[in-house]
Amino acid sequence: MATTDDDVLHVHPDRLLPADPTLRPLARELYESVKDLPIISPHGHVPPQWLADDEPFADPTSLLISPDHYINRLLHASGVDLADLGAGGRELTPEQSRRAFHLLCEHWKVYRGTPMKFWFESVLSDVFGIALVPSERTADEIYDRITAAIATPEFRPRALYQRFGIEFLATTDDPADDLRHHAKLAADETWTGTVAPTLRPDKYLEPATPAWNSLVDTLGQVAGVDTGTYAGWVEAMENRRAFFKAHGAVSSDHSHRDARAERLDDAEAQRLYARARAGEITPTEGDTLRRHFVFQQARMASEDGLVMTMHPGVVRNHHTPTLDAHGADVGADIPMAVEFSEALKPVLSAFGTAPNFQLVLFTIDETVYSRELAPLAGFYPSVYVGAPWWFIDEAEGIKRYRRSITGSAGFSRTSGFIDDTRAFLSIPARHDMNRRIDSAFLAELVADHRLTMAEALDSAYDLVVTQPRKAFKL
Amino acid sequence: MATTDDDVLHVHPDRLLPADPTLRPLARELYESVKDLPIISPHGHVPPQWLADDEPFADPTSLLISPDHYINRLLHASGVDLADLGAGGRELTPEQSRRAFHLLCEHWKVYRGTPMKFWFESVLSDVFGIALVPSERTADEIYDRITAAIATPEFRPRALYQRFGIEFLATTDDPADDLRHHAKLAADETWTGTVAPTLRPDKYLEPATPAWNSLVDTLGQVAGVDTGTYAGWVEAMENRRAFFKAHGAVSSDHSHRDARAERLDDAEAQRLYARARAGEITPTEGDTLRRHFVFQQARMASEDGLVMTMHPGVVRNHHTPTLDAHGADVGADIPMAVEFSEALKPVLSAFGTAPNFQLVLFTIDETVYSRELAPLAGFYPSVYVGAPWWFIDEAEGIKRYRRSITGSAGFSRTSGFIDDTRAFLSIPARHDMNRRIDSAFLAELVADHRLTMAEALDSAYDLVVTQPRKAFKL
Amino acid sequence: MATTDDDVLHVHPDRLLPADPTLRPLARELYESVKDLPIISPHGHVPPQWLADDEPFADPTSLLISPDHYINRLLHASGVDLADLGAGGRELTPEQSRRAFHLLCEHWKVYRGTPMKFWFESVLSDVFGIALVPSERTADEIYDRITAAIATPEFRPRALYQRFGIEFLATTDDPADDLRHHAKLAADETWTGTVAPTLRPDKYLEPATPAWNSLVDTLGQVAGVDTGTYAGWVEAMENRRAFFKAHGAVSSDHSHRDARAERLDDAEAQRLYARARAGEITPTEGDTLRRHFVFQQARMASEDGLVMTMHPGVVRNHHTPTLDAHGADVGADIPMAVEFSEALKPVLSAFGTAPNFQLVLFTIDETVYSRELAPLAGFYPSVYVGAPWWFIDEAEGIKRYRRSITGSAGFSRTSGFIDDTRAFLSIPARHDMNRRIDSAFLAELVADHRLTMAEALDSAYDLVVTQPRKAFKL
Repeated sequence: MATTDDDVLHVHPDRLLPADPTLRPLARELYESVKDLPIISPHGHVPPQWLADDEPFADPTSLLISPDHYINRLLHASGVDLADLGAGGRELTPEQSRRAFHLLCEHWKVYRGTPMKFWFESVLSDVFGIALVPSERTADEIYDRITAAIATPEFRPRALYQRFGIEFLATTDDPADDLRHHAKLAADETWTGTVAPTLRPDKYLEPATPAWNSLVDTLGQVAGVDTGTYAGWVEAMENRRAFFKAHGAVSSDHSHRDARAERLDDAEAQRLYARARAGEITPTEGDTLRRHFVFQQARMASEDGLVMTMHPGVVRNHHTPTLDAHGADVGADIPMAVEFSEALKPVLSAFGTAPNFQLVLFTIDETVYSRELAPLAGFYPSVYVGAPWWFIDEAEGIKRYRRSITGSAGFSRTSGFIDDTRAFLSIPARHDMNRRIDSAFLAELVADHRLTMAEALDSAYDLVVTQPRKAFKL
Repeated sequence: MATTDDDVLHVHPDRLLPADPTLRPLARELYESVKDLPIISPHGHVPPQWLADDEPFADPTSLLISPDHYINRLLHASGVDLADLGAGGRELTPEQSRRAFHLLCEHWKVYRGTPMKFWFESVLSDVFGIALVPSERTADEIYDRITAAIATPEFRPRALYQRFGIEFLATTDDPADDLRHHAKLAADETWTGTVAPTLRPDKYLEPATPAWNSLVDTLGQVAGVDTGTYAGWVEAMENRRAFFKAHGAVSSDHSHRDARAERLDDAEAQRLYARARAGEITPTEGDTLRRHFVFQQARMASEDGLVMTMHPGVVRNHHTPTLDAHGADVGADIPMAVEFSEALKPVLSAFGTAPNFQLVLFTIDETVYSRELAPLAGFYPSVYVGAPWWFIDEAEGIKRYRRSITGSAGFSRTSGFIDDTRAFLSIPARHDMNRRIDSAFLAELVADHRLTMAEALDSAYDLVVTQPRKAFKL
Repeated sequence: MATTDDDVLHVHPDRLLPADPTLRPLARELYESVKDLPIISPHGHVPPQWLADDEPFADPTSLLISPDHYINRLLHASGVDLADLGAGGRELTPEQSRRAFHLLCEHWKVYRGTPMKFWFESVLSDVFGIALVPSERTADEIYDRITAAIATPEFRPRALYQRFGIEFLATTDDPADDLRHHAKLAADETWTGTVAPTLRPDKYLEPATPAWNSLVDTLGQVAGVDTGTYAGWVEAMENRRAFFKAHGAVSSDHSHRDARAERLDDAEAQRLYARARAGEITPTEGDTLRRHFVFQQARMASEDGLVMTMHPGVVRNHHTPTLDAHGADVGADIPMAVEFSEALKPVLSAFGTAPNFQLVLFTIDETVYSRELAPLAGFYPSVYVGAPWWFIDEAEGIKRYRRSITGSAGFSRTSGFIDDTRAFLSIPARHDMNRRIDSAFLAELVADHRLTMAEALDSAYDLVVTQPRKAFKL
């Protein structure tokens, strides 16, 4: 291939820092102070097996495209078939894999202005040292160079974990999981990182879904408890939480359609549980019991101390034909409006000032930032405003987050950055984007004399180190 | 009149471009690259008769004030009687017309910071060459100079169409319209522009409204179909869509209280249709049938290929006494919260990936930008995020649009600018404002190194040319 | 104490003005033109007794911390017990008072980026001349210097009122209040300021609450009217409104969960009123009657001319244990989503163009700015968009307000700034923050050529003087 000047990828050291001549040097000083600090990643979706087994990655597409629904969805919107990208766990032949990579490169223009462009360019440039703009012309060369790189020891998962400066990495795991990969890492004396599991019990809390009874059977078997009764469900869940905690878990993660958590009296909980076990529960009763289950998770959290993270308000699998053809998590989830103030009143009245309880609230409905999340976190010692998440985890969204949150919650009530990604190689770029934008925001506060530079430098450090440690009890 | 220095209107060439010394030259370069490109106006309310007949405009007030509810509403809020402005189609005497123009000029201050000021100043300066700030002192001179100008051939509608560089102009038309003005233009060999009709069937889709039965009778007569049955309604509507398409229509336009589109089975549709035809349908049933009708419009669109545009969520005729005195569309419509994610699930599951289907979504509830519209358009190949519309079609609103949309939808999923105006003379100013703000936004992405200047120049062109052509199949 | 360089508080004269080198001098010129104009404070919570009796303030904590729920809530979120701050009117011993002040100073860092930092630093620096950054190290010195200052005549309430340049100050008062403090001030020939009462009848409009019957009994006694019947309630309320007006009131203030105001026919109002008086009204009926009561307040306002202010949409006393332990208004109120467009349709159809009626709408749900409030105020001559309030009365919130409102409502439909505070000493700082941000916003409009500097200077003056006078009929 003959590349041209247009093919050269320039990754500017000041990218995402404000252009204003007063702000740029301030932002740069702040960013320089935090850019090389270790990465704390308290919530994400990297498969623990990658680090446990430390096998080489298979090919560029299955590493960078197939599992990344951010990348896939915009290609789908541009007319590409998800099947051609290996979405939904579909295996691709070597030819198909190369073809998928071409599809991305040919459509590179659609990512302009999106974080996917920033992340992907950072991966190319900073992880692989490839200074090429993706295009039809450069696709093969990029593909070949990545293929060559991931065959080397320096690109094995553990080597990258070290090179990325990751200090703590949480995975997301089913309550019935045996956590063998986490155990293997813990038992490996050559491994010096920390990979912690996270309990994600959503499916076990939705009693009106078809799979629920079989899931709860499995939960009982794994926990060694009879889940035929409500008391058994509680005991099994407490048992699994303890098991996760023993394997290093610091949090449980929850995502339902709404944020409601409401206690039933025991008799009503037992009655609805029995109906659910009999397969007779209605969808409305299912919601009622689910909200009680979520309340119980909060009660358990106040006792065992696992941090509770919530990110409600998503219409999952919006496009039924896509669900049927490719399964879940391929980019067809769409946000919806969400409400926290009323929804969380019962659970916060019960546990909002409990010493052991911590609740990190994520949203993809930005309207709740200044209206609900910052006021809640600005009053309750247990509540933290989670980082911008998913559709709003991009440069402008992160700016809006700080601008909306800080007035009533300051910095000390925020969680620090969460990458929430299964795209392992993009983790440094995601944290880097956030550090740049937070530095830009702090620079503004210095430039208009709301903070001294000493205060801003201190807060920049806090946002990267102190806040995630505090919010996730690290 | 003796004018003073204060009366001189300065229309700065860099208006709306960012003040920042780094950004301004970048924005100016981008703006220069697109400012003279032809105007594509795929949705608006200019009367086609103006261009078909090419008669001179009558007077400044009936041209610039009476039909413009943006102008009228803020004068009304300032205590002016709508009747004095010729709102609602009321004819004014020459004295009343001049008096109305005075009222605008006397209240000129209330438009500070609004787009009306930008548009009107652009019209004065760029269309008429009148460099006077409107005021009590200048009102007569401005009025007289406009009166003189519109009497000349250069200010006839067709001459202005050419001078404005309009390439495509869509009007908004009743399904029963005979489109004679469009036909006249098409048959006129001296006319080189394109004026396309747009099907606006709202009234025919609201079976619980008093006028519905008579409208559907008319529809049947015009279509030559018996609309006594549901099947007749469908056939008549398909017939009219084909008629519009044959006359150059590229889209149908839809505005109901909500965005829901939900299919009924045929028996239920027939049952409700029969009740509606008998005048017995309840408001709730009327909503149900209307949502089915909207679903049918989408089904027809997936077959005939007319682009579907939606702009739901308005409390029409908020002030009952104003409706009674002046009729609809005089500035008393007020936006309300709207929901797209759930509402569009059925119709997008059915047609979201259909090759012929395209859906452009407009909103005046900005909360849906990052939460619903950008995620929808970032997944579905059929969905485009429409331009900021109505109350948010102003400088700051357009900025918020790009900042909220781009992270998950990029540029390629957006519709390009829509002026949606009946104020013909303001069309260039409206497109110009948008080009300036888009240039400013792109300049920011260049300045903080998210885009190269070459990428930004390419995207600036796309936003003016490629995107409207793609979204509206031009 | 040995203070260090780090302890020196620098309060920069340009704080909150934009850093951009083009904008800063423009903003400074605008700010300079308004910074020393008198303060109009048409809504707030300063106790009138302070000014009537003009006693010295007791101690720094009961002056600056205990009554300020902005300060308290973020300390509570940081783990401080509200009891230790004297919240809820709890008396503190001198030792406890000093300890509370230490708690604030030790946690000073949590206020970074919040308006509380700006306000408190302005109070320290501008009111007390204390150039010390609060910290564990400086707490005693600051406490002692404030203690000494407030013992002097210069720091008596009336002296501060004069020194602050306050021209008009409204308090918030119960309808049954005898307004003796206002009467005392009015009768005092040595007093040249204006302290007006504001009628806050919320509790008398909520017939389903436990205290309502007893409150309405009292209202009847104070008014000399039998409130056993609905007609009596109306007469008593009209009577008290007249009494307030006679004592200088210019407005009534209303805060319920929603913004609805809906007329019942007399028979239904009488029926529900009788049920309420019998203690038999249901919560749903209570809402219905309350909405009628609010409608009646609007009807009375259209007759007696008192301006009506509304700020709905708050979950009051979100944390039940805090309410039980400390009472209301200690920082545990949390905003919720609110709707104005539909809610106000009946009352605005009835009174929206009535010559005597004025309605100022406040929100803590920012989504309604561009969607509902600006469109309403941009049409109805009676409606003004109130200032950013409570959680959004901070620098970024004020910026968002202007950016969201101005496009459709301009400046002339806004209320001017409202401090709404019981923190008397922070009144100048709060108005100052707003004047700075408004100047910054106007500077942007000048810099990108939307306004001339002459227009901006004129509008800056209007925002401080003309608009509050117009909105509150001063």
